[in-house]
Amino acid sequence: MGLNSNRVDNLACHETTIRIPTEAMPPVEIHKVCLPPKQTTFQKLKHRLSEIFFPDDPLHRFKNQTWLRKLILVLQFFFPIFQWGPEYNVSLLRSDAISGLTIASLAIPQGISYAKLANLPPIIGLYSSFVPPLIYSLLGSSRHLGVGPVSIASLVMGSMLSEAVSSSEDPVLYLKLAFTATFFAGLFQASLGLLRLGFIIDFLSKATLVGFMAGAAVIVSLQQLKGLLGIVHFTTKMQFVPVISSVFHQRDEWSWQTILMGFSFLVFLLTARHISIRRPKLFWISAAAPLTSVILSTLIVFLLSSKSPKISVIGNLPKGLNPPSSNMLYFSGSYLAIAIKTGIVTGILSLTEGVAVGRTFASLKNYQVDGNKEMMAIGFMNIAGSCSSCYVTTGSFSRSAVNYNAGAQTTVSNIVMASAVLVTLLFLMPLFYYTPNVILAAIIITAVIGLIDYEAALRLWKVDKLDFLACLCSFFGVLFISVPLGLAIAVGVSVFKILLHVTRPNTMVLGNIPGTQIYQNLSRYREAIRIPSFVILAVESPIYFANSTYLQERILRWVMEEEERIKASNESKLKCIILDMTAVTAIDTSGIELIRELRKLLDKRSLQLVLANPVGSVMEKLQQSKVLESFGLNGLYLTVGEAVADISSVWKAQP
Amino acid sequence: MGLNSNRVDNLACHETTIRIPTEAMPPVEIHKVCLPPKQTTFQKLKHRLSEIFFPDDPLHRFKNQTWLRKLILVLQFFFPIFQWGPEYNVSLLRSDAISGLTIASLAIPQGISYAKLANLPPIIGLYSSFVPPLIYSLLGSSRHLGVGPVSIASLVMGSMLSEAVSSSEDPVLYLKLAFTATFFAGLFQASLGLLRLGFIIDFLSKATLVGFMAGAAVIVSLQQLKGLLGIVHFTTKMQFVPVISSVFHQRDEWSWQTILMGFSFLVFLLTARHISIRRPKLFWISAAAPLTSVILSTLIVFLLSSKSPKISVIGNLPKGLNPPSSNMLYFSGSYLAIAIKTGIVTGILSLTEGVAVGRTFASLKNYQVDGNKEMMAIGFMNIAGSCSSCYVTTGSFSRSAVNYNAGAQTTVSNIVMASAVLVTLLFLMPLFYYTPNVILAAIIITAVIGLIDYEAALRLWKVDKLDFLACLCSFFGVLFISVPLGLAIAVGVSVFKILLHVTRPNTMVLGNIPGTQIYQNLSRYREAIRIPSFVILAVESPIYFANSTYLQERILRWVMEEEERIKASNESKLKCIILDMTAVTAIDTSGIELIRELRKLLDKRSLQLVLANPVGSVMEKLQQSKVLESFGLNGLYLTVGEAVADISSVWKAQP
Repeated sequence: MGLNSNRVDNLACHETTIRIPTEAMPPVEIHKVCLPPKQTTFQKLKHRLSEIFFPDDPLHRFKNQTWLRKLILVLQFFFPIFQWGPEYNVSLLRSDAISGLTIASLAIPQGISYAKLANLPPIIGLYSSFVPPLIYSLLGSSRHLGVGPVSIASLVMGSMLSEAVSSSEDPVLYLKLAFTATFFAGLFQASLGLLRLGFIIDFLSKATLVGFMAGAAVIVSLQQLKGLLGIVHFTTKMQFVPVISSVFHQRDEWSWQTILMGFSFLVFLLTARHISIRRPKLFWISAAAPLTSVILSTLIVFLLSSKSPKISVIGNLPKGLNPPSSNMLYFSGSYLAIAIKTGIVTGILSLTEGVAVGRTFASLKNYQVDGNKEMMAIGFMNIAGSCSSCYVTTGSFSRSAVNYNAGAQTTVSNIVMASAVLVTLLFLMPLFYYTPNVILAAIIITAVIGLIDYEAALRLWKVDKLDFLACLCSFFGVLFISVPLGLAIAVGVSVFKILLHVTRPNTMVLGNIPGTQIYQNLSRYREAIRIPSFVILAVESPIYFANSTYLQERILRWVMEEEERIKASNESKLKCIILDMTAVTAIDTSGIELIRELRKLLDKRSLQLVLANPVGSVMEKLQQSKVLESFGLNGLYLTVGEAVADISSVWKAQP
Repeated sequence: MGLNSNRVDNLACHETTIRIPTEAMPPVEIHKVCLPPKQTTFQKLKHRLSEIFFPDDPLHRFKNQTWLRKLILVLQFFFPIFQWGPEYNVSLLRSDAISGLTIASLAIPQGISYAKLANLPPIIGLYSSFVPPLIYSLLGSSRHLGVGPVSIASLVMGSMLSEAVSSSEDPVLYLKLAFTATFFAGLFQASLGLLRLGFIIDFLSKATLVGFMAGAAVIVSLQQLKGLLGIVHFTTKMQFVPVISSVFHQRDEWSWQTILMGFSFLVFLLTARHISIRRPKLFWISAAAPLTSVILSTLIVFLLSSKSPKISVIGNLPKGLNPPSSNMLYFSGSYLAIAIKTGIVTGILSLTEGVAVGRTFASLKNYQVDGNKEMMAIGFMNIAGSCSSCYVTTGSFSRSAVNYNAGAQTTVSNIVMASAVLVTLLFLMPLFYYTPNVILAAIIITAVIGLIDYEAALRLWKVDKLDFLACLCSFFGVLFISVPLGLAIAVGVSVFKILLHVTRPNTMVLGNIPGTQIYQNLSRYREAIRIPSFVILAVESPIYFANSTYLQERILRWVMEEEERIKASNESKLKCIILDMTAVTAIDTSGIELIRELRKLLDKRSLQLVLANPVGSVMEKLQQSKVLESFGLNGLYLTVGEAVADISSVWKAQP
């Protein structure tokens, strides 16, 4: 113990040693390697936990404020509406009203369509475009998010619940499960936010999502062939093979009237979309196209209704506001597990979309969106939704883009949209009686086709092959296996990638760039030269149990190869191995064992092992485990340059 | 494309730029940052795969050799016996004979005991000490490994198979399953070796194993209370709670004769063990103690057999060599799954022990053990074993230690041991008739008690709290849940640790150590000073999807905090952020997005972002994704020092 603390004192820093120069030893300035400032286990734990859970330092703004100010800040923190509310004015309202009405014209047909995607009654989609946007406008911190049902979450909910219950045979149970799943999705989302575990959604990497979205979009589009071809008996499965076989086995049900109408409007919608992509200023064309299609097709069917009964229509929709549905939540029984599972999967997916969309538009307008707070907002919105006949909602990419382009300034645009939906619910429902289902299929296809981002996939291939692999895995996993399994595989591949990097880290031989103190990779910098009698190795990864065996083998192999090279080229004998630890960002007990073992092995071969620039936490562990003591004074240097200079001068002094 | 290749040319290295000095701009030597040498995707893949599967470069020894020499080397590679065989002599044989006989005296009682641990007939333990050592002596590359059944693998096999089949109700099926599991264990081990996937066992970190071994030892010891107390009806479960309750619920079955004999011999064995640990030269005391106990106790029971029938004995053991058992392997039916699962779990555990023991003694004698080849040897030995009435075997720590201390020189000591077992099997089996079961329990307890390494656990706690947590998890997991689940939890914790390090990497502010070009952590090196107008940040981890959101928040927070500090202390305005990328050992597409985004955000605040010393692979990806172009000439430097010098000189020139 005494020895130990003594050693720490020996290592005390803030001083430089200058060897007393002799004839054989020129002066070399050597800096000691410091230990990080001492911290108790509790302090370390506190620091660690605050980095894990509070990386954004949310209490920062409360520092040095009066009590009243703090109270206002707390209120503003939980209800961002108090932040921009006081400064709200007529000019902002005009912008918000225009954008709100624009997204309403998109939200109404999308709501009806997406509800059908989730095998729910169309009216649920409209309900879901009314309550959640109102809640979000109170709690949400993004100013451009357009809230409502989204295609991916609808698809996943539909596919997961249909595996347990048939929506046509037992619609009430199915509806109950949908609300329950929505409740759990909200609960899960709000908990992630409250417990500040938002980083969990980071594990769905961009690469994974590109593949997942594309796979889901293909599945959804194929599923829409049911509506587009007018097929009545269709598979409820979501995989590629059963859907395709279902399409071709039911050829006798294909209806040419439906097909004609469907493809005409599909072409119209895709053209409108194409124009808006080419010219962002004409965003209103694609925004208005769905409603226009609905109105036109409804008129056509209404006029032809006596002649062409072959086109299936939405039919009667109940007038009136969201009925309460808290009595339909389902907290026991055999279906609870599937409801919770569905809730968690749709919850995490909708959260990912909502947070990503919020961040995207925030960065365009240069303001910050707090991920954890956003999760709480989306979570509470879904919990409230589940009690008022809504299913899972979140920030939708298509609606937010339209909202942004139409000039939305605050979440008031969501309130305007909700009001428009309110009017629709109260007065306009009968108008949808003759709306053909085929038009909903066309709207869905147009919406999801944008999710197939082959350019992003191409970029992944170019820049990072393993990311591309993760992307492919999630694409084919979703397409051929199932949505949750596809996602799990993709997350697995992403995590595997991290582990692979740690398991087989880069090691390299460094050389000196003449005239400098810079040591760089010999194979990358051709001007770098070897220092005779030294091998300087850099390890580019933490040293962990997963790579300590590999690193030992690899380092010994480097040493062997260098010895062979030296022998072949008749250079001076190898005497010292310098391990540049700059990029060894952490070490565990196996890693410490490796250092100890390596030192012993090299010692037996009369080779000196020297560590250069270990980072704070590594230094601390080397000291705690007493490995450092065995290195002595000539075994630890702040830089490779100082190590080379000092050791060479010692050699010169003792020839 | 043209632009792209142009850019690469611009970056071509091996030259230094020296700005033309003006009055305001002193000369600054600037080194360009190089791209790594160009490689095709195929070359990269090849390099990557060779690092993953052939880190030890096994073909190295075949380079520049004649064909005949190559043939001999191949033969030596697969059968290491050809390596040392030609040089074998009488002096080596004498050492090997002594150590072989010593480990035989340990192997015979251990074999019988461990077979009972696996709920197998005692004779199987002796069979397993005969065939496998012979096979290993042909194939194995460790010279000190003592081969045979081991406690952990026996315990796990017993506990996993007992869950499916009762060894007392259907002993034949149980035996069949044991052989089948052994076959699959061997197949799995050999495949790992052949496919060069040996690094999989590295994921059982030392910390995990410490906890696992201790948990298993506690369970095994408690189980032995059955034999030690003479209980007849005992639970077949392996968890702590049922075992303890079984001990106290069967108090009427306790037999004082058994207890007296058991504890006397237990004290004797533990004392012998203690002496040998204190004085390694007296290793033969603990080596001979088990056989002595068996002989003594057998004599006592034989002499008292008429008076004290209460002590249960082994009974009749069949004389003769291993019968073939390939007809008992079981490749179909409902129990196949459990046999495969048991095989994989026991296979991986016995492999871990065998390879670790081999490496330990190899490093003591300064020779190398090839992990992958060792796996093949152990695998083939178990496959052969499964066809000759043996169950899972591997290199045992206790036997190898005795072997090493007794002076073994080559694997011939295993052949000597096998011969001693052969003699026992052929002639001495009737002598074991009166051997009491209680003595086997005492032998097992003495053997496993050494697995409880509380000192190692203490070291873990001191050096690495998360490693200690992994250790605790596997300890309690094994004790209270089950062996495979305990292991899975522990591996999960270890992997989580890696992910946590990547998810929340260290970031820090660097300062200059006056008079040098060294930049170090400000909080660690008190002499380091800030450079006015600069913030120099270092990120200590690869930038991946899992941390890109965090890093963006964290870096912006550092910048904000620095700006506040500067404002408070009236220093000159912040103008430039330097990101030291030395420890950013890899980047993926999300990471590249982060750099792009960060640059944009800082640009909006009129802050310049500069990258210093990106490693090769990061540089390559930045270039492929064209992020590099946006940084221009003043955005990328080889060292932080050069960045500071060059940018400051530019500022001076343009005030």
